[in-house]
Amino acid sequence: MSYQVSPWELRWQGLAIDQLHRTESTFALANGHIGLRGSLEEGEPVGLPGTYLNGFYESHALPYAEIGYGYPEDGQTVVNVTDGKIIRLLVEDEPLDLRYGQTLDHERAIDFRAGTLSRDTLWESPTGRRVRIRSTRLVSFTQRAVAAIAYEVEPEDAVQLVVQSDLLANEPIERVGKDPRVAAALRSPLVADFAATDRLSAVLVHHAKKSGLRIAAAMDHEIDAQDGLRTDIAAEGDLARLTAAVDVPAGGTLRLVKYLGYGWSAQRSIPALRAQVEAALAGARQTGWSGLLAEQRAFLDDFWTAADVEIDGDDELQQAVRFALFHILQAGARGETRAIAGKGLTGPGYDGHAFWDTETFVLPVLTYTSPDAARDALRWRHSTLPQARERAKVLGKRGAAFPWRSITGAECSAYWPAGTAAFHVSAAVADAAVRYTAATDDREFERSCGIEMLVETARLWVSLGHHDQHGGFRIDGVTGPDEYTAIADNNVYTNLMAQRNLLEAVAACRRHPDLAPDESELAAWQRAADEMIIPYDDLLGVHPQSEGFTEHEEWDFEGTPPENYPLLLHYPYFDLYRRQVVKQADLVLAMHLRGDAFSPEQKAANFAYYEARTVRDSSLSAGTQAVIAAEVGHLDLAYDYLAEAAMTDLHDLHDNVRNGLHMASLAGAWTAVVAGLGGMRDHGGDLTFAPRLPAALSRVSFRMSVRGTRIQVEIDHTDAHYRLVSGSPLDVAHHGERFVIQPGPGVTRPIPKGPDLPAPVQPAGRRPRRR
Amino acid sequence: MSYQVSPWELRWQGLAIDQLHRTESTFALANGHIGLRGSLEEGEPVGLPGTYLNGFYESHALPYAEIGYGYPEDGQTVVNVTDGKIIRLLVEDEPLDLRYGQTLDHERAIDFRAGTLSRDTLWESPTGRRVRIRSTRLVSFTQRAVAAIAYEVEPEDAVQLVVQSDLLANEPIERVGKDPRVAAALRSPLVADFAATDRLSAVLVHHAKKSGLRIAAAMDHEIDAQDGLRTDIAAEGDLARLTAAVDVPAGGTLRLVKYLGYGWSAQRSIPALRAQVEAALAGARQTGWSGLLAEQRAFLDDFWTAADVEIDGDDELQQAVRFALFHILQAGARGETRAIAGKGLTGPGYDGHAFWDTETFVLPVLTYTSPDAARDALRWRHSTLPQARERAKVLGKRGAAFPWRSITGAECSAYWPAGTAAFHVSAAVADAAVRYTAATDDREFERSCGIEMLVETARLWVSLGHHDQHGGFRIDGVTGPDEYTAIADNNVYTNLMAQRNLLEAVAACRRHPDLAPDESELAAWQRAADEMIIPYDDLLGVHPQSEGFTEHEEWDFEGTPPENYPLLLHYPYFDLYRRQVVKQADLVLAMHLRGDAFSPEQKAANFAYYEARTVRDSSLSAGTQAVIAAEVGHLDLAYDYLAEAAMTDLHDLHDNVRNGLHMASLAGAWTAVVAGLGGMRDHGGDLTFAPRLPAALSRVSFRMSVRGTRIQVEIDHTDAHYRLVSGSPLDVAHHGERFVIQPGPGVTRPIPKGPDLPAPVQPAGRRPRRR
Repeated sequence: MSYQVSPWELRWQGLAIDQLHRTESTFALANGHIGLRGSLEEGEPVGLPGTYLNGFYESHALPYAEIGYGYPEDGQTVVNVTDGKIIRLLVEDEPLDLRYGQTLDHERAIDFRAGTLSRDTLWESPTGRRVRIRSTRLVSFTQRAVAAIAYEVEPEDAVQLVVQSDLLANEPIERVGKDPRVAAALRSPLVADFAATDRLSAVLVHHAKKSGLRIAAAMDHEIDAQDGLRTDIAAEGDLARLTAAVDVPAGGTLRLVKYLGYGWSAQRSIPALRAQVEAALAGARQTGWSGLLAEQRAFLDDFWTAADVEIDGDDELQQAVRFALFHILQAGARGETRAIAGKGLTGPGYDGHAFWDTETFVLPVLTYTSPDAARDALRWRHSTLPQARERAKVLGKRGAAFPWRSITGAECSAYWPAGTAAFHVSAAVADAAVRYTAATDDREFERSCGIEMLVETARLWVSLGHHDQHGGFRIDGVTGPDEYTAIADNNVYTNLMAQRNLLEAVAACRRHPDLAPDESELAAWQRAADEMIIPYDDLLGVHPQSEGFTEHEEWDFEGTPPENYPLLLHYPYFDLYRRQVVKQADLVLAMHLRGDAFSPEQKAANFAYYEARTVRDSSLSAGTQAVIAAEVGHLDLAYDYLAEAAMTDLHDLHDNVRNGLHMASLAGAWTAVVAGLGGMRDHGGDLTFAPRLPAALSRVSFRMSVRGTRIQVEIDHTDAHYRLVSGSPLDVAHHGERFVIQPGPGVTRPIPKGPDLPAPVQPAGRRPRRR
Repeated sequence: MSYQVSPWELRWQGLAIDQLHRTESTFALANGHIGLRGSLEEGEPVGLPGTYLNGFYESHALPYAEIGYGYPEDGQTVVNVTDGKIIRLLVEDEPLDLRYGQTLDHERAIDFRAGTLSRDTLWESPTGRRVRIRSTRLVSFTQRAVAAIAYEVEPEDAVQLVVQSDLLANEPIERVGKDPRVAAALRSPLVADFAATDRLSAVLVHHAKKSGLRIAAAMDHEIDAQDGLRTDIAAEGDLARLTAAVDVPAGGTLRLVKYLGYGWSAQRSIPALRAQVEAALAGARQTGWSGLLAEQRAFLDDFWTAADVEIDGDDELQQAVRFALFHILQAGARGETRAIAGKGLTGPGYDGHAFWDTETFVLPVLTYTSPDAARDALRWRHSTLPQARERAKVLGKRGAAFPWRSITGAECSAYWPAGTAAFHVSAAVADAAVRYTAATDDREFERSCGIEMLVETARLWVSLGHHDQHGGFRIDGVTGPDEYTAIADNNVYTNLMAQRNLLEAVAACRRHPDLAPDESELAAWQRAADEMIIPYDDLLGVHPQSEGFTEHEEWDFEGTPPENYPLLLHYPYFDLYRRQVVKQADLVLAMHLRGDAFSPEQKAANFAYYEARTVRDSSLSAGTQAVIAAEVGHLDLAYDYLAEAAMTDLHDLHDNVRNGLHMASLAGAWTAVVAGLGGMRDHGGDLTFAPRLPAALSRVSFRMSVRGTRIQVEIDHTDAHYRLVSGSPLDVAHHGERFVIQPGPGVTRPIPKGPDLPAPVQPAGRRPRRR
């Protein structure tokens, strides 16, 4: 039993209770503000219930058996807030529960153009009564505080139905395991503040015990039923419930629309927060169910016009890539200065924290497909500058050190070798800000946010590194993207990203001298960038990931059984760190993001070297490997990696989709298409392409938005076609040849033959699945 | 107020309640099995009460906010067991409490030859009654389960006295701070199993809640009083109490001798353990108080004959060095296959754990002064081989990996970069076993313990390191002695100690072919040793502590205020690790223990380089710096370091004597005299000397025991005199000249003039105090 392949939807037919924890994640709906996991309306059976509000968290102490200076003391965990999805049904006093009776038909589907999750179930109760339940659910892209569910029951025979529509706080959650990647479960985190009802509506206000954040959830209903409807509403503590009892004749239908309003605040009072969610509900009712549906579709139509990717020759991949784009949009669309978490709003994994993944993998996608969402996420980072400055200060550094993982911007990582030491986070923030600015010409953002982030991160780098006796600028004792090596000197990725950060900070200050610090500081940045050390192993003819890396012991891949992956769950960090085993693209990521710093020969040699040592125990890897595989000419391998990135969640490759989708991997699928097969690079807003297709795909097309211009790039085996969808002419390059995409039928360019290199080898058993 | 200088005792005159937490440590008595902190008999005022039994601990979970594979889950903490020191006094219903009334005289003294702690107090109660209290306390070196207290009250006027002599379990302990170096305090760890009384004796049996270890404490009394003595005894749960009421006439005396018996076991039943401590008491009473005193003195006379150090020209140092030797003896004398903890049995610091300190710093002292104690400590290590093998296995290595910190031998370190990664622990164990064997010719030990430890540690090293492309044997990603650098490649100290470990393992196997593994394994050890990489910085002409060290950023010592030491409490690890700042001798320790691997010029250059970067935030450093300072000719500096090592606890230089004495630093004082001023080196049992005195000392003499031979070395400014105290002739060397010490008047040799090098510089503010 699995997903059905279809270009514009994700559909699952049949009931598979043991798969619910997975499909709740893939069927999650969100708008960047509210996230609803795809659990059944009747609440049970359930894998892991989840209703999230971006930024709403609970605090908890981080325990240490041995404390160290500067260790963060407070952790933050995303909270499963008041659940408004629940609509329970009694069919003649038998509760609808798919674990009992017989489920004759059952299917669920997300429609990527409609922006809805629909469900259609034909159920026979243990005593033989049949009912059909249809529901359609949305989390509105246009009204960010609103979600809604249309719920329809159609009994085969005349029957009495009782519907209970709940707001339920402190839902019980099954205990989660010891896996460090799984969020710490919090028991009953919410304290009831207020409850009220009014006709068919109710509101509950709670606050989180330790963080003190306050949340309000409200529901209202429209019921469309035959005569004899009897309703009752009650609210108290953790539960608000509308009960509707009705006798439905054979062939009749009970139809209910449930509107949900959510809001939270660290500051606002109970009445203010109540008013806020009731206002949201009023707006939603004013728009009405069909209005919400129409707005949703219009929003998505616009998105797909800007962002659609078409893949001919692999229907499953076509679906997966749209699935990826849809979920990335859901994660960021209406974040509005809140973070985009590693799992978006699809599950509690990683405690709901945002990582560097957002800036490095997710924001490039949004920058070219939904730039306002990218801007909002960057504004969130900007809003955390006080915490990042404070963190840098605690660490004895200048400028701003962005956290490894956080909800509020305060560091929540309790393991510094892979947290604090991963200073490349700050370069990722700077890089994303630069990319966004160049791709949008949003000078207002640059002046109000971008420059400050660049200046503060540049300050971090110069205070973190030092000029050695020979003048070289070293950044020692840091951790790069590869989490299987830590606390190393001169990590090539970090040094190259810091170099760009420093140079872009200088450039931005030159553009806006009124916002620039004094010249001596700029000169120090320039000098550090100019003298940045990039280690190179002359003997092997490759870049060591960091100093000494290529002299480390090789990992015994032949002697590592498949069940010992991911390695970090079966081998100690000390042994991973001291060997040539790579969790995820690091030097290879440097070759993507700082491709200008490597010759084509170096790229080919480095890629082959690191391919043989990269195990992809991280979902942040395949997309990047696809990009460089394509660049150095291994198109079939690029295709395999593209498919792996795109299928990470649909095939649950890391066996943890239960905890939410991997946003960076979803983003990696897009990147693998656009930067991999399309060869798109953007250095300073200058877009270049070098498209080439693997044999299995007959045509790939993608759309992008740059400085208000939307273009489409269509690729087949012989040619690429560049077309202006809307906006002004755009200067681009195709395999090094520059031209301007003008309005009209577009430009077709032949695709040159690629290099023909021997296929690289992966560690034993770690070759990506052949597509 | 401070200690009075006296050659054979440590005396404190006057009452200083705010210093009690310190003097309880310095006045602690122990015999390696039982430890009693020097708290007052009346129980209060008290700094930190403490009664310890070597090896008795409580378990607790080690918490991690982010767990990793192979992290130890169970911690162990030394427990303050049933306190038998308590003798409370009521003077006409006024409790003797030095916080009330007036203390007219008060002094306490440890006598290094008698092995007793005496106390003499003249107290006037708030209502004006005067009593003199004298007590003498001992923890028997000859009867290891026994301690005893003679307690005498002499009132000025006729008065009624009530004495309460207690066994008290689960004594309340004041909460300790956040300092990671302070032991986790455990609340009420003991569960009462059994209590009984018999005439003037009582016994309490408890077990620790989680570890399940069982402990029995028993007391018996002799009371010598005038007529009218009335006694009562009771025991229940956590308290056993003998109450004695007596009317003492003017000039009369109440005299009480309290005998204590202690025992613990992981296996034995309540009756068995009770029988064990009652038998100990019976023995003690049979010997009697004066008999115990006599045995104690005879034991110590023998020790001082073998081990005494005389220092002319610095009386305080003379006292401090004997204080050091006395406490080292106390820590190890009767350990009998239990560990020697970092704090001995003088306090709860470091949770009562043993570290590599024992093998590297303490055992060399015991090897030459009390070799049976050294043997017993090594037998303890040997007994932990199963845990060390298991640990190596968990870490994916062969052989045995001894723990960074432990009571039982199981790793208890919760911070792997300074725990697991410090594999040099295993080399320290091997080195100590080799030294002991060579210095004693104890072939029975070698066959039953030594070889196995050498073989298993050699196996660890070959599985930990690897031969690189050029054949060099590398040991990457480990932490050397300097805790301000971690997870580094090719730490010189580690590589040199591993090299010796491998070579000694080969040699031992050649001596005992019947116990040797097959030849191919020996060949692998030999090859790893032969090809061991020892990095060298040609440009600077010094050895980098580990690869890349000399290219790291310098620490800003000028900008570091004195209150920011120790640095680890004020700066994050990440920043310490990546800079040229050294917590404690590392490369310099290598130059002591592997002096054969460095030329004199390298020693001078390296010493100067590391002096400028070593902050001595560890008490393990000064003694070693003294040794190499003396070797390279800086005798005044050696003298300063010797004094610092010797005074670490008496002057409470690290402000943590409250938690116990620093055994390794006390040992460092001996080492600074013998290996520093005496220039003693022992490579394979071949003793050599290169004595030289600083200007301030007129004469230094020390004694040593080697293979049953006791010698004395006396040094003045012109000559050294070598004399046989007892035993067979001994082949030694003096400044390179070989000769044999024969029975008779001994050999006098002139001391050559030393080199005259510019004085090395220390980090700003970190020069040792000039003596």
